[in-house]
Amino acid sequence: MSTQPTLVVLGASGDLAARLLFPALYALEQRERLADLKIIGYARQEWTTDQFHENLRASIDMGDSEVDQKYLDMFIDRMEFHGGDLSVESLRQLTGVLEGDAVFYLALPPGVFADAAETIARAGLADETNGSRRLVIEKPFGTDLTTALALNEQLHKYWREDQIFRIDHFLGKETVQNILVFRFANRFIEPVLKSAHVDEIQITVGETLGVEGRSRYYDGIGALRDMIQNHLIQMMTFVTMEPPARRDPEMLRDHKVEVLKSVALVDPAVDAVRGQYSAGLVEGTPCIAYRAEPGVDPTSHTETFAALRLHVDTWRWEGIPVYLRSGKRLAAKAHEVAYRFREPPTSLFKHTPFEKAEPNWLVFRMSPSECTELVVRTKQPGLELEARESVLRAEYATSDEREASAYESLLLDILEGDHTPFLRFDEVEWSWRIVDPLISAWQHGAPEDYVAGSDGPAGQHRFLDPGHAWRPLVNPTS
Amino acid sequence: MSTQPTLVVLGASGDLAARLLFPALYALEQRERLADLKIIGYARQEWTTDQFHENLRASIDMGDSEVDQKYLDMFIDRMEFHGGDLSVESLRQLTGVLEGDAVFYLALPPGVFADAAETIARAGLADETNGSRRLVIEKPFGTDLTTALALNEQLHKYWREDQIFRIDHFLGKETVQNILVFRFANRFIEPVLKSAHVDEIQITVGETLGVEGRSRYYDGIGALRDMIQNHLIQMMTFVTMEPPARRDPEMLRDHKVEVLKSVALVDPAVDAVRGQYSAGLVEGTPCIAYRAEPGVDPTSHTETFAALRLHVDTWRWEGIPVYLRSGKRLAAKAHEVAYRFREPPTSLFKHTPFEKAEPNWLVFRMSPSECTELVVRTKQPGLELEARESVLRAEYATSDEREASAYESLLLDILEGDHTPFLRFDEVEWSWRIVDPLISAWQHGAPEDYVAGSDGPAGQHRFLDPGHAWRPLVNPTS
Repeated sequence: MSTQPTLVVLGASGDLAARLLFPALYALEQRERLADLKIIGYARQEWTTDQFHENLRASIDMGDSEVDQKYLDMFIDRMEFHGGDLSVESLRQLTGVLEGDAVFYLALPPGVFADAAETIARAGLADETNGSRRLVIEKPFGTDLTTALALNEQLHKYWREDQIFRIDHFLGKETVQNILVFRFANRFIEPVLKSAHVDEIQITVGETLGVEGRSRYYDGIGALRDMIQNHLIQMMTFVTMEPPARRDPEMLRDHKVEVLKSVALVDPAVDAVRGQYSAGLVEGTPCIAYRAEPGVDPTSHTETFAALRLHVDTWRWEGIPVYLRSGKRLAAKAHEVAYRFREPPTSLFKHTPFEKAEPNWLVFRMSPSECTELVVRTKQPGLELEARESVLRAEYATSDEREASAYESLLLDILEGDHTPFLRFDEVEWSWRIVDPLISAWQHGAPEDYVAGSDGPAGQHRFLDPGHAWRPLVNPTS
Repeated sequence: MSTQPTLVVLGASGDLAARLLFPALYALEQRERLADLKIIGYARQEWTTDQFHENLRASIDMGDSEVDQKYLDMFIDRMEFHGGDLSVESLRQLTGVLEGDAVFYLALPPGVFADAAETIARAGLADETNGSRRLVIEKPFGTDLTTALALNEQLHKYWREDQIFRIDHFLGKETVQNILVFRFANRFIEPVLKSAHVDEIQITVGETLGVEGRSRYYDGIGALRDMIQNHLIQMMTFVTMEPPARRDPEMLRDHKVEVLKSVALVDPAVDAVRGQYSAGLVEGTPCIAYRAEPGVDPTSHTETFAALRLHVDTWRWEGIPVYLRSGKRLAAKAHEVAYRFREPPTSLFKHTPFEKAEPNWLVFRMSPSECTELVVRTKQPGLELEARESVLRAEYATSDEREASAYESLLLDILEGDHTPFLRFDEVEWSWRIVDPLISAWQHGAPEDYVAGSDGPAGQHRFLDPGHAWRPLVNPTS
């Protein structure tokens, strides 16, 4: 009996598949990590497999000068196309095609996730007699707690939780995974990552881009649901979770859920700020206002910037704020996670430049540069025994090291059945529980205006606790 | 009444004065830190002040292209010369010359320290009616505990402890002072510098140089007394002392003495290794054996390399070894202090390259490069969630920053009366108490042979505790 595994990409003619999935699968081919995997593109189009292959060659070749013809041929060889819609009848044609383990990747609009998952199962394709069956979906997982719970209920009618792989592609990023490695593979840092020594955590995901053709989806959703509820809150779990004792996906996710469940109820009146960009200059280029973007309601109150203060009420993080912010059309692209340390007893260096120097920061930067930084005090060169700011720094990778894209990494984990970087439903649920009060509150009122190309609304600075300040979007040392 | 302060350099025609003191004083002139100080050169020569000035111009100009004529003129202006020997009669000529505070710098052979200090006092120059009187001496402070106690008794007949400034020039080095700044001006590191997290400390002062014309002094003294008893044990106090609560020279020195008193008795049979170099190649240059050096006894058993294991029996350092080593004619110049951290619980990264990676190290490097390094694990770029070694690094100073030489820094502290970087007698005493058992033991037997240009005697590796290894003399990352 053959047990060749199969990956079925539903929505194979779509943007996600062409732009991210197939290039990532090709990259895995080039790394020789696909073994005997068969890949089936499935879409409504009446393409022949030859036509599909031509499209694939075009999308893989596009913009990548390092495509190796040998690997591209091997890649094309393992791809076949099946035309059909998301009906039980259509999908049944795949029954005889799937010989062993099979993964169904729903590269489809979120609105059809539930129906597609159900139809696949009703077509008999979720039956595990001849091999495992897995389902891959990408965020958004609902638009609030209620819709997320409903979606999940529908999925669980036909699929067990351990068959479902929910993608938050930030968790596939190497520099995000590096947070866990740095925290748990080093002896010196974990003992001081607690509120006895740390007095603040900041997570910033700032973009210079605007809505970029996603306005129909984005308007009415906004930064809170598009970024904070998933990517930023996930990063927050990485920086605040307790160290798991073993490398066990369920233990890891248990620890993440523990953090999510420990977040104190957010008060929309004081713990959050929202903004929407007006026309301005981003890195020298004139940009129109959000409300003037094609596809956006000209009276829209959708926030393109959101900032949030959370308290993680664990023994480890008692009492200190965790600040999250994300926005579009900001002055610079900046993705980073930073712990700020408390001051040491200052009596040794009072009345020296030390007092003006930054406190210690541990920074994981993902963009624009990829590096780990420790902001420290060292001796000021010269005659006096004084301290100044200095940065201990390591680039994440050298220029000749090949990093994996988030999709490469995630696709391989799916094929290997490793749940580590995927969201269990309770993570999704408790993330919605954190932001739900804000979603309700923000049905009313309007976001604060900010000029495109600025660092966001002024309110983000006012709402911080006294003595705290956002790190600059443009980092002076990188 | 004038109170112009005066620095009297006894031995003004000697090598130490010309090579180190006067250039350092000139450097302080150029920094405009000498105020109205008068400097008196005192020596046996029958120089006129003009001749003295000419010699000074020559020694300051020599090899330094950045001498500023304006400052050199100002510097020469404040210098005068008095000829005389170390008799009471001769020294009395200075009585009328000293108007306010005065410092006597004994740039003299160690054998005459005690007599010179007594004669100065008997000439009436230690009288503090018109200003403070200070005495500066440099190591060696005796050649073992007995002679050190005797020297000190003689000094204390005429001078109070707080009048005496004992120089260990390593404590004037910026990169050594940086150890204290780094430990006590940063919040993140001090809580993990303890044996719960650190399992070893290494201090290496390796030289490529040989005895360089000091053979008459060096032979019969050796590496233990010339380097370990003072420089390395002092650095050991910097890395192991408890943080003082205030910037108070006595509190700092109290903490250093506490560490010295906590060192467990060394067993010469197992805790130490000595070596002596034979002929070899050092950085490509042929070098003769130590015993063949001019001025060295051809049957000498003097060690040119010494390594030592200490245990600092404090709550903080309970149970972990502190390894010291210093040697001449080694493969590379390497001055560094390093803490090695324990492994974290490894279950997260077992069976990954992590297991082969170095554990965390915090390294203060003084030579050849000046930098602070943290050896850490970060994610191995690529598809797997694995850890690899990476170095967080900060150079001590940028190329355009002007560092102070050890003598500049120490002379200014003497003039300002700051005892911080000088040795109190109890530090000297307790350092001798640490090495005295070795001095006795090493009267017998012979040092192990090592080839000039190697990393020292093989015994240095064998005597380490299992699981420990010396860091390489040539650091791969600098």
